[in-house]
Amino acid sequence: MKALQYVAIGQPPEVREVPTPEPGPGQVRVKVTAAGACHSDSFVMGLPEEDYAAGYPLPMTLGHEGAGIVDALGEGVTEVSVGESVAVYGPWGCGRCRQCAQGKENYCERAAELGITPPGLGHDGSMAEYMIVDSPRFLVPLGDLDPVDNVALTDAGLTPYHAIKGSLAKLGPGSTAVVIGTGGLGHVAIQILRALTPATVIALDVNEEKLALAKDVGAHHAFLSNEDAVEAITRATGRATVTAVFDFVAIQPTVDLGSALSGVETDLVLVGVGATKADVGMLARPFDATIRSPYWGSRAELMEVLDLARAGLIDVETESFSLDDAPEAYHRLHEGTLRGRAVITP
Amino acid sequence: MKALQYVAIGQPPEVREVPTPEPGPGQVRVKVTAAGACHSDSFVMGLPEEDYAAGYPLPMTLGHEGAGIVDALGEGVTEVSVGESVAVYGPWGCGRCRQCAQGKENYCERAAELGITPPGLGHDGSMAEYMIVDSPRFLVPLGDLDPVDNVALTDAGLTPYHAIKGSLAKLGPGSTAVVIGTGGLGHVAIQILRALTPATVIALDVNEEKLALAKDVGAHHAFLSNEDAVEAITRATGRATVTAVFDFVAIQPTVDLGSALSGVETDLVLVGVGATKADVGMLARPFDATIRSPYWGSRAELMEVLDLARAGLIDVETESFSLDDAPEAYHRLHEGTLRGRAVITP
Amino acid sequence: MKALQYVAIGQPPEVREVPTPEPGPGQVRVKVTAAGACHSDSFVMGLPEEDYAAGYPLPMTLGHEGAGIVDALGEGVTEVSVGESVAVYGPWGCGRCRQCAQGKENYCERAAELGITPPGLGHDGSMAEYMIVDSPRFLVPLGDLDPVDNVALTDAGLTPYHAIKGSLAKLGPGSTAVVIGTGGLGHVAIQILRALTPATVIALDVNEEKLALAKDVGAHHAFLSNEDAVEAITRATGRATVTAVFDFVAIQPTVDLGSALSGVETDLVLVGVGATKADVGMLARPFDATIRSPYWGSRAELMEVLDLARAGLIDVETESFSLDDAPEAYHRLHEGTLRGRAVITP
Amino acid sequence: MKALQYVAIGQPPEVREVPTPEPGPGQVRVKVTAAGACHSDSFVMGLPEEDYAAGYPLPMTLGHEGAGIVDALGEGVTEVSVGESVAVYGPWGCGRCRQCAQGKENYCERAAELGITPPGLGHDGSMAEYMIVDSPRFLVPLGDLDPVDNVALTDAGLTPYHAIKGSLAKLGPGSTAVVIGTGGLGHVAIQILRALTPATVIALDVNEEKLALAKDVGAHHAFLSNEDAVEAITRATGRATVTAVFDFVAIQPTVDLGSALSGVETDLVLVGVGATKADVGMLARPFDATIRSPYWGSRAELMEVLDLARAGLIDVETESFSLDDAPEAYHRLHEGTLRGRAVITP
Repeated sequence: MKALQYVAIGQPPEVREVPTPEPGPGQVRVKVTAAGACHSDSFVMGLPEEDYAAGYPLPMTLGHEGAGIVDALGEGVTEVSVGESVAVYGPWGCGRCRQCAQGKENYCERAAELGITPPGLGHDGSMAEYMIVDSPRFLVPLGDLDPVDNVALTDAGLTPYHAIKGSLAKLGPGSTAVVIGTGGLGHVAIQILRALTPATVIALDVNEEKLALAKDVGAHHAFLSNEDAVEAITRATGRATVTAVFDFVAIQPTVDLGSALSGVETDLVLVGVGATKADVGMLARPFDATIRSPYWGSRAELMEVLDLARAGLIDVETESFSLDDAPEAYHRLHEGTLRGRAVITP
Repeated sequence: MKALQYVAIGQPPEVREVPTPEPGPGQVRVKVTAAGACHSDSFVMGLPEEDYAAGYPLPMTLGHEGAGIVDALGEGVTEVSVGESVAVYGPWGCGRCRQCAQGKENYCERAAELGITPPGLGHDGSMAEYMIVDSPRFLVPLGDLDPVDNVALTDAGLTPYHAIKGSLAKLGPGSTAVVIGTGGLGHVAIQILRALTPATVIALDVNEEKLALAKDVGAHHAFLSNEDAVEAITRATGRATVTAVFDFVAIQPTVDLGSALSGVETDLVLVGVGATKADVGMLARPFDATIRSPYWGSRAELMEVLDLARAGLIDVETESFSLDDAPEAYHRLHEGTLRGRAVITP
Repeated sequence: MKALQYVAIGQPPEVREVPTPEPGPGQVRVKVTAAGACHSDSFVMGLPEEDYAAGYPLPMTLGHEGAGIVDALGEGVTEVSVGESVAVYGPWGCGRCRQCAQGKENYCERAAELGITPPGLGHDGSMAEYMIVDSPRFLVPLGDLDPVDNVALTDAGLTPYHAIKGSLAKLGPGSTAVVIGTGGLGHVAIQILRALTPATVIALDVNEEKLALAKDVGAHHAFLSNEDAVEAITRATGRATVTAVFDFVAIQPTVDLGSALSGVETDLVLVGVGATKADVGMLARPFDATIRSPYWGSRAELMEVLDLARAGLIDVETESFSLDDAPEAYHRLHEGTLRGRAVITP
Repeated sequence: MKALQYVAIGQPPEVREVPTPEPGPGQVRVKVTAAGACHSDSFVMGLPEEDYAAGYPLPMTLGHEGAGIVDALGEGVTEVSVGESVAVYGPWGCGRCRQCAQGKENYCERAAELGITPPGLGHDGSMAEYMIVDSPRFLVPLGDLDPVDNVALTDAGLTPYHAIKGSLAKLGPGSTAVVIGTGGLGHVAIQILRALTPATVIALDVNEEKLALAKDVGAHHAFLSNEDAVEAITRATGRATVTAVFDFVAIQPTVDLGSALSGVETDLVLVGVGATKADVGMLARPFDATIRSPYWGSRAELMEVLDLARAGLIDVETESFSLDDAPEAYHRLHEGTLRGRAVITP
């Protein structure tokens, strides 16, 4: 079968012919119907050699967003049937620790120790004709949902959903939510905020086209993410601070902006992959303002995201590519010229 | 191997010689170290013939509280190792529906449809030398906890724990919790309330010995469960109503007593197996006073219960019986002459 | 000044000339701009003589929904200014007990003991040119909101809002909420559900016109509230049970219908003024299905409701009447020929 | 009357003769029975001149922890009676904003704008024979609680209580809570954690005597707060990270220690008055680990703290001083030679 693989550190990924894999005991083989491309793939491909030595064997098939048709069952698998249309839950865990026992496998206590990695981020991923999924519990029914339109929800939907759910109790009437970075994840975040809360939603981005997309998908306001943003928000809402900031960029300037927008009990949620500094403490930050960095989401949360799609409440902007054109998709992703999400259809 | 089986409807259970079972794909065989006897077994044995025709094939090995040593693995099982000491999570579910995806298999959406039943309540249970467990996810590590002392926590601990957790947010400083029926489950409920909350805990029972046990395990007050109970509670706490009532008896008189003790926002939690009537509505019951009937608990909650035992915060009163004496244990349970919980050690 | 008063038990209310009241120490006089008519007024006017003897002195000015302009301040009042446009929070409490300390004056622990009653339900109410409000904390800023359009939110908005907020955590993606009775409160409930949740909202009523209103304000489905309702809901949603039922009628048939629609963890919320019976207990009702009867709402919740109106997310259907025509408004209310809410403008 | 006043910037406070104040409309005069001395007083006395120019008029009577007997009522006050024993809720707010409407006056949205300051921190405080309290809602019934033993609960109890309550949902069975700094507030925090949670409680301090106090009041473990602390905790609990860290010191080394102890979903709660830096973001901090700085507590929370004292679950270590000796109390506080809390009895 064909697979998009990361072969050598620092090189672009390649489409290669590899053996079609067989499911071992407890595993499931899925015929891939759609695979999403994500910034974190680029991040992973940019990791230095020592990280790869430690945990990511090469060549590795990319793709941590996947959907497909159950194709073959390993020994002992009874929970799914061949022919079922499924989405693949990506943040695999051990299934038995306290976090996994609640379906929060994204926070598995033992994944690192047991060498468990997500598909496409260590384990072979979805950018191939077939993929092996380690347990049927990672397969969530898609039903009638179109795989191409919805595969990105497994990360670009689930990650903002989990981030927003952690702040949901604060986002009641009269609240304001800021989304920084309105690309692949951010434009879904806006829709989730609109579906789950009565908050005023404000989009910030450095790119005018992405701000237009933000307005299209429901942002009440959209401003350039620059030194005037605080003032623009103050003018729009009548207040200089907001209830929650969801930062999908998470570089020092956006974290500083999120801090500037923080008032009493504001949640600053850093979703983008980054490492920055912040002033903390009672004299440096408003009372009970929080900072946190969520990661992906739980199994039940993925079901909830798919339910939002079923209800017509979220819709991912996608651009389709064949597997052969997948390298081009990553190129466009890197250049920032995609509108929404690139989806590979093997 | 020997097994305590319910053979014929209306007859007492018998110890019988049966073939030692083999684990199928995905299953685990456990060598039983302890099995708890419970009122619900008697309840199940009292069901009419038509219920058995519908879902409970006879003969059936009893025992829905179980602990043991992992003994043999079916095909495809990698999550547990032979030799591990485990407790068996009893309310088995499908593992994939929304409830199961959160570990709330007690509320599985598909168990009935798929014919999934708990061990000892349809599926062969723990009152045997060996038992088959349908998935490794139902095996919670016991570690150094003594199986005989702690096996009852899988139901007699988990059920009150889940019941109490649903009311935990209300049981803050100044609150009062009433436990009606301080036998097998109730005397654990008292300890859980003391461990998790600063509430004043009041025990009610018709049996003076059980009231003495209630005081021993931490109840602040213990009164006879009769027409004077409301007045006794009013005298002890200065208020005629309480924050929560956990009713482990759940017959009409105790439900009426729980209603009489209900004030604004009181939770009346009917844990005992029963069916009664209640007055409801704004003119019949205090504002936002709730009634509900929880059932067993989730996988993560069982881990939490075992953690309470590890911390020395709960301790089940038990009496040990050999498998051959198991019928006697049920006889004593039926007569109400056990202090605490009967545990069978095969 | 003119006031609509309930003068004699069993007689319709009359418009009468009474002295304009003076605010005492700590009180505020409000020049009424709008006053809502409510079913509970009729309920109160229907109470038997002994209840009036106990707590409701006659004649009494009606009206527990009120809005106005701050007109005169009693001694010691500094928190509001003359000329401010305000809504009157109705469920007055002592202000100091634990419930009041959280702004939940609707559940004041001492109101009965201290003889504190809401305006229009004991204390003189808003159906007059002026009304006395016992504390400035009961005055919530209206700002630019139109008093006539929004006065009903103080009860017909606040009551369903509080009812829904208690079930909000359950009303996530994939959930279903049923509203029984889509009149004054119910048609606002539908809008609140749409604004705060992604739930599928189903309206039930015996009146086709009210069902049409329900669809107009956002219900996804609207069915006659009869013996076919369960089947209609099953067909529409694919499931025979729902996540929550908000029953604004709360008579035995609707409570039975709500019970029939209850599954595991369903909330049956009886908002209508009534007293009925329900089957409860583990064998009679699905696991952890709850029943409760909320009452009105908290001070902060009223602010939140007004914020929903400010955001354009709720809109009360109203019909305006002069104070002289107020008796006619009650007549129409009693006959059920109002579409939405009757508002009196003195 | 006598009052301990801060007279000149940079000078120690002095006991002075001042006129006995009269309550204005809406105010209450309290005859002080006990007043607690607190580090924040020293902090305030150390503020630079420009801050005083802005908001703190001198001379100012110190004392933000107060208890007393209601002594005289201003016009319009009916909610309290002369002779009542009360504790003074310190973080005064406007009483009408959304935060105050929930009793969270510590987070009042308008206090700064309206120039509202707590007693002893702007407004004249409790270190005098009499004090003026701006509203009866700030007076919480003490009942039979001894004022000298319990006055410190108004800050040294309320502040850790509010800090802990924000993390309560995480502190279930198997959890671990670290308290850094076990002096005035920290030693109460330990008791609150023991009363409200089943967590393992670990005390860290640089002072061996304070560690002994920590063990006396219920800490399971007590270690020196130095470079070996992480290892000591790992040895004691079997894990290198903890569930929550309550840092009552909040200087860079303790914040760094708290960060080192943070794992997935850990709460780092900075209660001490400080301003530090922290690494944040997905690559710098475990997933969903939070940082926040709470401040004091709500009105209802103060009631809850007093209920814990009533139940015998918390007990503040105090040392008594006459008003004349109050300067000595501050001197000892500054030197760190107090065991527990200094209480002035005028």
